[in-house]
Amino acid sequence: MSEIRSELGWSTPERITVRGKDLPGEILGTLNLGDMAFFELTGKFPNPKESRLFNAMAVTLVEHGVTPSALAARLTFLGAPEAMQAAVAAGLCGLGSVFVGSMQDCARLLSSGKSAQELMAENKRIPGLGHPLHKPVDPRTVRLFEIARETGYYGKYCRMMEEISTAKKLTLNATGAIGALACELGLDWRAVRGIGVMARAVGLVGHLLEESRQPMAEAVWHQIEEQASRHLRK
Amino acid sequence: MSEIRSELGWSTPERITVRGKDLPGEILGTLNLGDMAFFELTGKFPNPKESRLFNAMAVTLVEHGVTPSALAARLTFLGAPEAMQAAVAAGLCGLGSVFVGSMQDCARLLSSGKSAQELMAENKRIPGLGHPLHKPVDPRTVRLFEIARETGYYGKYCRMMEEISTAKKLTLNATGAIGALACELGLDWRAVRGIGVMARAVGLVGHLLEESRQPMAEAVWHQIEEQASRHLRK
Amino acid sequence: MSEIRSELGWSTPERITVRGKDLPGEILGTLNLGDMAFFELTGKFPNPKESRLFNAMAVTLVEHGVTPSALAARLTFLGAPEAMQAAVAAGLCGLGSVFVGSMQDCARLLSSGKSAQELMAENKRIPGLGHPLHKPVDPRTVRLFEIARETGYYGKYCRMMEEISTAKKLTLNATGAIGALACELGLDWRAVRGIGVMARAVGLVGHLLEESRQPMAEAVWHQIEEQASRHLRK
Amino acid sequence: MSEIRSELGWSTPERITVRGKDLPGEILGTLNLGDMAFFELTGKFPNPKESRLFNAMAVTLVEHGVTPSALAARLTFLGAPEAMQAAVAAGLCGLGSVFVGSMQDCARLLSSGKSAQELMAENKRIPGLGHPLHKPVDPRTVRLFEIARETGYYGKYCRMMEEISTAKKLTLNATGAIGALACELGLDWRAVRGIGVMARAVGLVGHLLEESRQPMAEAVWHQIEEQASRHLRK
Repeated sequence: MSEIRSELGWSTPERITVRGKDLPGEILGTLNLGDMAFFELTGKFPNPKESRLFNAMAVTLVEHGVTPSALAARLTFLGAPEAMQAAVAAGLCGLGSVFVGSMQDCARLLSSGKSAQELMAENKRIPGLGHPLHKPVDPRTVRLFEIARETGYYGKYCRMMEEISTAKKLTLNATGAIGALACELGLDWRAVRGIGVMARAVGLVGHLLEESRQPMAEAVWHQIEEQASRHLRK
Repeated sequence: MSEIRSELGWSTPERITVRGKDLPGEILGTLNLGDMAFFELTGKFPNPKESRLFNAMAVTLVEHGVTPSALAARLTFLGAPEAMQAAVAAGLCGLGSVFVGSMQDCARLLSSGKSAQELMAENKRIPGLGHPLHKPVDPRTVRLFEIARETGYYGKYCRMMEEISTAKKLTLNATGAIGALACELGLDWRAVRGIGVMARAVGLVGHLLEESRQPMAEAVWHQIEEQASRHLRK
Repeated sequence: MSEIRSELGWSTPERITVRGKDLPGEILGTLNLGDMAFFELTGKFPNPKESRLFNAMAVTLVEHGVTPSALAARLTFLGAPEAMQAAVAAGLCGLGSVFVGSMQDCARLLSSGKSAQELMAENKRIPGLGHPLHKPVDPRTVRLFEIARETGYYGKYCRMMEEISTAKKLTLNATGAIGALACELGLDWRAVRGIGVMARAVGLVGHLLEESRQPMAEAVWHQIEEQASRHLRK
Repeated sequence: MSEIRSELGWSTPERITVRGKDLPGEILGTLNLGDMAFFELTGKFPNPKESRLFNAMAVTLVEHGVTPSALAARLTFLGAPEAMQAAVAAGLCGLGSVFVGSMQDCARLLSSGKSAQELMAENKRIPGLGHPLHKPVDPRTVRLFEIARETGYYGKYCRMMEEISTAKKLTLNATGAIGALACELGLDWRAVRGIGVMARAVGLVGHLLEESRQPMAEAVWHQIEEQASRHLRK
C-alpha cells in the first residue's frame, strides 16, 4: 500500500506553499487561472506560448449553452439554492463517456505511439471526430490549430487527427483538437478529462448565476412533467 | 412562471456564440480562463486591471493542500476511477457554509451599504475574519490587497474589512479579502461562492491526477477504519 | 477535537457486525430495508408497529414522478451512462431547503417543546403546510395518519400539525405529516431529511432504469435548448 | 429521438399514482421500503418470498462500516452540514467499478446464457469472487443462499457461481451472491448496481447522523494532512 503523501500544498503560519512555490510571493499576480491549472497538472509554470495555447483549450470548453449538464445544475439549484456548490457538482456528474470522455480517449489513443494508419486499422471509431451541427468544419478546431501554429505547438498529433479526419470524411471536432493539443503540450492523457471538468465548472457557475436572476428550471420541470405524463392523464 | 430563456450560448453550423461574442473569433486566444470566468459572471470582458485582480483572487482559492474536499475527491476516485468527473463533484459538494460560504457571506454583508460600525453593531460574527494558522496576518490578504492597490481596486470595502479586523483583533483572512475585492469589482455577491467552486474544481483535478500516480486514498481508508473500530475489536 | 471512532460496523474474517448485531445471523432475513434504515437511525430494531409506520413514511417519499431531481438524474445519465451512481448523486443534490428540507424544519419546530399557539405566534411560515395541487387535503397525509392511529402513534405532534393546518386554512401536506410522525417515533430531527434522501435514492434508481429503456433526456435537452435560444436565433 | 414519456408517477388533486397503483390506497401500509424498490425496478409488487429475498439482498449492502464512501460523505458534511443531501451524494459518487460495479458485472455475465465452463474460458477475471478478509467463505453469502433456499430462489445462477468459486478456489463474496440472486429474481442486470446505490444511501444517512453527534471528519482531516505533508515540513 502507498504512503500517505502529497506534494501539492502545505502551510506554516508565515508561508503558504503550492507545489514548492510560495503562493503569495511567486504565484498570485503572476499566474492566471489557466496557468494555475497548467501548473497543477504539470508541476511547472507555463511559458507564454504554453499559457496562450492551454488557456485557449480550456476556454473552449467553458460554455456550450443549455446542455444536459447545465440543465442538471439548474434543476438542482431549484431545490437547493442554498447549496450552489452541489448544483455545480450535479452538473459535473454527467461529464462522462458521452460528452467529455472522448477528449481523453482521443489523447490516450494518440499517445499510444501508433500511426494514423495503425489507429484507423485498429479502431472502428476514433474519438474526437464527427459533429451533429458543425460540418464540414468545427470553427473551434480551426481557431485552436491557428493558435497552435502561432505558438509552435502544431505538430504530429494535430497532423494525425487531420489525416484521420480527411480519410474518414468526418469533422475534426473541438474535443479531437483538444485531445491532440494536450499531446502536443505533453500533458498526461489521464488529466485531459480534467481540463473539461474544470472548464465546465466555470461555465456552470455562469449558468447558476443566470438561473438566480432569470430562472428557467421551474418552467422546464412543469413543461416536461406535463408532457411525460400526458398519456396517463387521459 | 419564468420563460425558458438563456443568453449564455448558442450555435449555428458556422458560428458558436457565447454571450453575444463569437467564441472562435473573439474569445479564443483573447481571454484566459480567469477572464472567461469574469465574462461568465459579468457579461463583459475584463480590462487588464480587472483581469489581473480577478485572476489573482481565483488563483488564491485553487489549492489548499490535503483538505476535506480533496480527501473526499480522492476517496471517491478510489472506488470509481473511471468517473473522474464524479470525484471532482464529490469534492465540490463540501464547499458549503463552513469553508467557502464565508466569502459569499462577507460580500453580501459588505454590499448591504452599511458602515463598519453598523456591521459590527449588528453582527456577532463577521465572516472573513480569523484563521487558525495564519495570525496575525494572512499572507494572501497582504498580497491580494497589494495587487488591488496596483490595479486601483483597493477601495472602501477593503478599508472596511481592515477596520473591522483591527477593531476585533482578528486576522483578515483570504476569504474576507476576496469578499471585499469582489465588491470592489462590482460582482454580484451571489456569484462569490462560485469563484471558490470553480477554483477548487481546478485544484481537485490536480489532486486526482496526483492520486492516480501516487495514491493515498486506500491507505487513508485502512488507517482510519482501523482507528475507528479499534474499540470494537477488543 | 473528537476521537476517530464509529459504532456502525466492523468485521473480522468470520463475523460482520453492524451496530453490535451480527449481520448474517441477526439482521439478514429479519429486517426489511426500511427496518434497516430505522436501525441505522435509532440503533434499535423497530417493533412491528414502528416498522409498519416507518416503512410507510419512507415509501411515501420514494416516487414523485418527473421531478426536478429525477430530471437532473436522467440528464446526468445521458452523459455518463457508465456511472449510474453519479446520476443518482446528481438527483440527490437538489433535495435541499425547497423540497425535502421542510420535513426536517417541521420536525425541528415540533420538537422544540412549544405549543401550536406558540409556534404560530413565533413563525410567519410553518413548514409542512400548503400544496399547489392537493387541496384541501393531501391524500398521503390522510393515509399516513390512519396508519399512525392503527399503530398507536397518532399523538400530540400529529394533533398540533392538524390544529395549525385548520387555523391557517392550509393543507397539511405529506412532508408535514412525516415531520410530525418522525417526532412521534422519537427520531432525531437531524435525521429527518435523511429519510427523504434515502427514499428518493430508491426512486431515482427507478427513473434511471426507465431512462435506460425508454430515454427522454436527449429529447428534453433538445427541446429546452431550442426554446432557451430561440430569441437569439432570429 | 425518443418521446418524453414516463410511466412512473403522476398526480391529480385527489389521486397520487405510482406505476398505475394508488399510492395512499394500495401502496402505503402494504409495501415496505425494499418492496417499493422491487416495485420500482420490476413494475410489480413482490410476493412474500420475493420480498424476503430482495430485502435481504438490499439490507446486506447498507452498512459496511468506515468505507471510503462513508469517509467521503463525512468529510463533505464537515464543510456543508446544511446540505446533508450533498454529503450523501458525495458518498454515492464513489460506488463505481471498484466496489459496487462488480455486482452488476456479475449479473450481466450470468445473464449472458453461457455455462460456468464457458464463462471461465472467456474471462480472466470473474466478478464477485475473492475477498481480502472473508475467506474461505463470506458469511453473508452463506446466509443469503440459505434464504434463497428457503424461498425457492436458489437456482442455476447460484449454482454457477458456486461452481466457479470452487474451480477458482476463490471466496464467493456477497456481491457475487447478490449478482446471482438478482438473476434468479429475473431483475434486469442494468438495475443491479442500483440496488447497491440505494442501500448505501440508507447507510450513508446513518453515518452522517453519527457524524453529527460524534464527529470524526475534522480529526481525520488534520491527521491525514499532517502525514501527507510531513516530508515537506522538515
